Amino acid sequence: MVETYGDDAYLLRPVGRVASPLTDAASAPRQGDEGAPTAWLIFDPRVEQALSDLSAGAELLVLTWLDRARRDVLAVHPRGDETRPRTGVFSTRSPHRPNPIGLHRVRVLAVDGLRVEVADLEALDGTPVLDVKPVLGAADER
Amino acid sequence: MVETYGDDAYLLRPVGRVASPLTDAASAPRQGDEGAPTAWLIFDPRVEQALSDLSAGAELLVLTWLDRARRDVLAVHPRGDETRPRTGVFSTRSPHRPNPIGLHRVRVLAVDGLRVEVADLEALDGTPVLDVKPVLGAADER
Repeated sequence: MVETYGDDAYLLRPVGRVASPLTDAASAPRQGDEGAPTAWLIFDPRVEQALSDLSAGAELLVLTWLDRARRDVLAVHPRGDETRPRTGVFSTRSPHRPNPIGLHRVRVLAVDGLRVEVADLEALDGTPVLDVKPVLGAADER
Repeated sequence: MVETYGDDAYLLRPVGRVASPLTDAASAPRQGDEGAPTAWLIFDPRVEQALSDLSAGAELLVLTWLDRARRDVLAVHPRGDETRPRTGVFSTRSPHRPNPIGLHRVRVLAVDGLRVEVADLEALDGTPVLDVKPVLGAADER
């Protein structure tokens, strides 16, 4: 059992970027199902094989690096609403957190080579994409 | 719109570790709802405030760094079953992928200071924890 800490660190290398009309955090929807526009994931040619089985209709989880977030924030007023009590960030979806990884559920609209068009992505234009995973169905369909 | 690539990289610093009886990837369940044992998340004292609102019963998403995975794998036979066709990793939950971030849905059983006991976590003992997020309810309950 590991109970001590060092200062280990791991290096993330983006596999792509978000291309979106959203450029301003203040006006962007807080979650993808709250009015996000259509966006594109533009992948690095080096990971082409990893996306070769994506197709229109797929439900995906997209992991991003929220590069405009603060990493030194440990508690926030949820959704920026100062009438709500300050809450530890592990109980919120605030982008501000020690490792600002965004988690977005999206639907694939189209695939065009290294470009994947998706619905319901609230990430800002230029946001680095870290990973893409399928939404899991029932255990007997995996 | 961003359409070119550099070699940007981002540094992850673990916020905690998994303590689990699971030590062997070959015998571990492939998903948390496929027979994973009770485990503990042991947090770094530096993030204590971030977990201050976690409590028993909470449904969480735990993000981990799958430190025993390979990063140079872009396609796999799903679930290691060689009768299934090789599939791009972005269409699978394989731990082997360019940024091996694990995504685990768990339920909090108990909180004891910096130690959080959880059900349904299939991560191996010692796995670095990157982030914890609440499972989102309906849009009008956020």
